[in-house]
Amino acid sequence: MNDFQFQNTTKVYFGKDQLHYLHEEVLKYGDKVLVAHGGEFIKNSPLYTKVIHELESNGITVYELGAVEPNPRHTTVNRGVAMCKKYGIQTTLAIGGGSTIDCCKAIAATSLSETDNIWDLVEGKAIWKDALAVIAMPTIASTGSEMDKSCVIANVELGIKSGINGEPIRPKAAFLDPTNTFTVPARQTACGGFDIMAHLFDMNYFVNAEKYPLQFNVVETLLKTVRTQLPIAIKEPENYEARATMLWAASWALNSFCTSGFKTQASLHALEQFSSTMDLTHGLGLAIVMPKWMKYLLDKDDSVADDFARFGINVMGVKNSEDKKGVAYQTIEALQAFIKDELGLPVHLSELGLDGSHFDEMKVKACYGKDSLPRAYRPLTQEDCLNIYKMCL
Amino acid sequence: MNDFQFQNTTKVYFGKDQLHYLHEEVLKYGDKVLVAHGGEFIKNSPLYTKVIHELESNGITVYELGAVEPNPRHTTVNRGVAMCKKYGIQTTLAIGGGSTIDCCKAIAATSLSETDNIWDLVEGKAIWKDALAVIAMPTIASTGSEMDKSCVIANVELGIKSGINGEPIRPKAAFLDPTNTFTVPARQTACGGFDIMAHLFDMNYFVNAEKYPLQFNVVETLLKTVRTQLPIAIKEPENYEARATMLWAASWALNSFCTSGFKTQASLHALEQFSSTMDLTHGLGLAIVMPKWMKYLLDKDDSVADDFARFGINVMGVKNSEDKKGVAYQTIEALQAFIKDELGLPVHLSELGLDGSHFDEMKVKACYGKDSLPRAYRPLTQEDCLNIYKMCL
Repeated sequence: MNDFQFQNTTKVYFGKDQLHYLHEEVLKYGDKVLVAHGGEFIKNSPLYTKVIHELESNGITVYELGAVEPNPRHTTVNRGVAMCKKYGIQTTLAIGGGSTIDCCKAIAATSLSETDNIWDLVEGKAIWKDALAVIAMPTIASTGSEMDKSCVIANVELGIKSGINGEPIRPKAAFLDPTNTFTVPARQTACGGFDIMAHLFDMNYFVNAEKYPLQFNVVETLLKTVRTQLPIAIKEPENYEARATMLWAASWALNSFCTSGFKTQASLHALEQFSSTMDLTHGLGLAIVMPKWMKYLLDKDDSVADDFARFGINVMGVKNSEDKKGVAYQTIEALQAFIKDELGLPVHLSELGLDGSHFDEMKVKACYGKDSLPRAYRPLTQEDCLNIYKMCL
Repeated sequence: MNDFQFQNTTKVYFGKDQLHYLHEEVLKYGDKVLVAHGGEFIKNSPLYTKVIHELESNGITVYELGAVEPNPRHTTVNRGVAMCKKYGIQTTLAIGGGSTIDCCKAIAATSLSETDNIWDLVEGKAIWKDALAVIAMPTIASTGSEMDKSCVIANVELGIKSGINGEPIRPKAAFLDPTNTFTVPARQTACGGFDIMAHLFDMNYFVNAEKYPLQFNVVETLLKTVRTQLPIAIKEPENYEARATMLWAASWALNSFCTSGFKTQASLHALEQFSSTMDLTHGLGLAIVMPKWMKYLLDKDDSVADDFARFGINVMGVKNSEDKKGVAYQTIEALQAFIKDELGLPVHLSELGLDGSHFDEMKVKACYGKDSLPRAYRPLTQEDCLNIYKMCL
């Protein structure tokens, strides 16, 4: 096992009756809070009314930042920074998905820096060492940003998604209420759930090194649990136990226990450039590319057969046999069927009316502008990426 | 899923090359540290020399508290408290097992209270709200005290083991170096490992309520991993991966992720009164009583058969069949054989030359002085406890 350091300080309030702790958490830092959300859907929800009441009835002044985009823009972050600096706000509260939480993290760091522009932090032009308090209230089980210390921001002018990473922006508290995810439509539930699975695949399950029994087995168990519970959450949107399992799994897929000691470069998250170039939902991009990536690797490299077969047998319910390569192909078919039939997601870009006109741009981004991803589960060149993208058409 | 709150702030430095971070952690709180250990074995170890050098070469003054007992005594805690108050010490550093860590936690809390006697805190006669910093350096994979916020102290005069519990005594940092556990003899390795398994059984696996898929599946995976790795650690004491897995598993068995949402009363830890009355090692007491507890329940209550069979099939490698009760009995036999043959531990008190003269005292303690344990996996009366103890002879 490689040496590692682990700490996750976020205080989690989990369940349907925890909101009354919110004002205590906010008042630890001050009596002014920026509440960020994605727009009318949240603003008109009973949750929003309850949150504002909980805050204002405890003497907290609320400043509102609405219209935070999916893939939040750096200009939106800067709008929040201006408010925090102008009004002396001490805490940012995100109500929404990973994008809203990431936006709040970016605002929190920039507000205590010398610049008013998050992109100066992203590019290392300005130093940041501290941040306003961040509190997260996720309304979808997906990114796990609520217990994580990084954020991703989109610079539309430059066509780049990038971010910052550091302990001060890890949420001080996270309020995880499964009932807040009841209204998430089937499609978004599926995409969020696949994002959880992709975190587990990418950072911990398909590794280019020795598998550590503890972390690896736990990751496989989380995968199996999500594989079972996600279709229930899709079919029965108000099934509390399924929603609760998904919400807690999202946090655990990214809270760095599972990655402790692992150092593999992510493959799927590198390949998933559909969201930044075609405005696809991140989880959908992952679901489209993953089975193709697996097939591409398996076609040319027998050494992946054992890992893929193990995944098939232990997670996807594929029957074991002596022909590991055969089992591995069946695993890919089972995954494709799971995505199509149980998650109800498209499996080809053509189903969405999309073509390959962005592929050349995407293959460069996938390799972070370099020739290849050398430390991924299996190294990928730009040409490999392009070939995989073509399989997605 | 029941509502719950979760936070675990301990910073873990895991691996063989982390000791150079120790002085940074200590200097966050001050330049005087109380180093507690169990005695000559630790004091003469290369680890101790390295720790003292790391501290003193960074300008930190070391005060030593040796001879901390297994089941640490309240008088030893008070000895440490007197030193901390006299010298204005800011941090307690435990090098040793759970007992040494627990002793440091008790010292840390008492030192910032109005009394000089830990037992006043245990009995609620003195209030404590804060504590000196605690840093843990476990030398055995066992109690998980290094990421936990409670401690158990023995009052020999009263014949009671009890403790305190609160966020301020959770270690600020834990240094988990698997090589520090290489010298743990086979017997202690086995007892420590069984203690880990007992935490998992007791708090999360044999539950008297609905099983939550995520936490339950993770617990089962941890059990299976320990069941596999522990015999390796016993046979190959310098197997780094096995020792690393055990050490990280110990922390995770008790760091409250696995218990999130569960509220079952512990059965095994209640029944394990052998250590307080006969001075048996805690883990050995657990290993002796567990198979008898299972057999006692299964003999009189068919409703446990499915749970026991699942444990047998998924953890102990017992073959599945339609006769769940038969599988459950085979599971108990497999567990008994595992304890005897793979862990090398005695399975009856008579093997240790011990008799039942303490049983009447133990049955009362097991029920915390009440008639029964009503919220355990299956409720146990004092008479049930006595019957189980008799099976241990």
